[in-house]
Amino acid sequence: MSKGRFIALEGGEGAGKSTQARLLADALEQRGIAVVRTREPGGTIGAEAIRQLLLHPPNEGWNPRAEALLFAAARADHVEKLIRPALDEGRWVICDRFIDSTRAYQGGGGGLSDEDIRALHRLGSEDLYPDLTLLIELRPEAAQKRLAARDPDGSDAIGGRSAAYHARVAAAFAAFAEAEPARFVRIDGEGEPDEIHARVLAALTPLLETAQ
Amino acid sequence: MSKGRFIALEGGEGAGKSTQARLLADALEQRGIAVVRTREPGGTIGAEAIRQLLLHPPNEGWNPRAEALLFAAARADHVEKLIRPALDEGRWVICDRFIDSTRAYQGGGGGLSDEDIRALHRLGSEDLYPDLTLLIELRPEAAQKRLAARDPDGSDAIGGRSAAYHARVAAAFAAFAEAEPARFVRIDGEGEPDEIHARVLAALTPLLETAQ
Repeated sequence: MSKGRFIALEGGEGAGKSTQARLLADALEQRGIAVVRTREPGGTIGAEAIRQLLLHPPNEGWNPRAEALLFAAARADHVEKLIRPALDEGRWVICDRFIDSTRAYQGGGGGLSDEDIRALHRLGSEDLYPDLTLLIELRPEAAQKRLAARDPDGSDAIGGRSAAYHARVAAAFAAFAEAEPARFVRIDGEGEPDEIHARVLAALTPLLETAQ
Repeated sequence: MSKGRFIALEGGEGAGKSTQARLLADALEQRGIAVVRTREPGGTIGAEAIRQLLLHPPNEGWNPRAEALLFAAARADHVEKLIRPALDEGRWVICDRFIDSTRAYQGGGGGLSDEDIRALHRLGSEDLYPDLTLLIELRPEAAQKRLAARDPDGSDAIGGRSAAYHARVAAAFAAFAEAEPARFVRIDGEGEPDEIHARVLAALTPLLETAQ
């Protein structure tokens, strides 16, 4: 039995990550691959409880440092109890957001250093990085349109931040993809779900070939 | 207006920290000192919500890494929103447990390195250490007797760990006090509250003299 592959989908709110995660999981299962689809923050009982604190803070809001520590705590639980065991059993894990979201939001958006965020990841999650990170990119206007159609009351403590914050997040994601071209594939998020899914599958070709 | 002093009380469960914190706060207030008495994990709305997750985990329990990250997140909120502002206003802060509890429990008890825990503290709480740390030490049998009298159902996810775990915690506390004699005073926790309080006040003499 070979070890599973770990694929993360990243990008801003409304980029289409969840839809693409679902379509990708279906496509892999049709090829006979056992898939676990999960999300962050969350994915385990403990991490989902932390998710609630992050997206609906009981206080007037967490500072960026407390926020990064909570994300790292949730991820430590998620990696230990779900992601690592699944990969060890040979399953493929498809995760809607992972470490690069913390780097982009609490780092690019919130001003924490990338070095500090990576240090938290090393401590909390034994430095687990995805085999492949799909960065789905969409113009802010198009993402806003999708978000408005999805849920008019759906904004949370992080999604509801300023346009300037989200612009810094998008720029950070793009910079990560440039810096690590072997781990990242940038996916154009414009168009219908099936068109974007075709781009995702094309990005997966190398991984699927080595897994045969 | 001078800056306030920061005093932490540390020790195992049942050592008498909360009682001594209360007596100390009263004694300082009688000397005209403005005091904020608080506790960890907790002390702010956000940190108290994290306290619930730590002491009554929604899952089968956090691993030591997730636990240390949650403590660091709670502390970051507590320091930012309560401790730092109080000290800046010239108040004295008396805190029932602080960073040395994380070092003793998740480090000494749980096996995380002291270097990692201190790195989390630097990142989360800008490396704030107490001016004085009172380590109240009590034989395990005496502490058990006090705990049983206090609340027979009161054991939580951390207090309820094995005797071996708590022995490692006590040894770690003692080692910290040996390593930093200028910051720590070891207080014999045997005896009546008033006797122990007299020891606490004696330990505070240098701090009170420099504050006049």
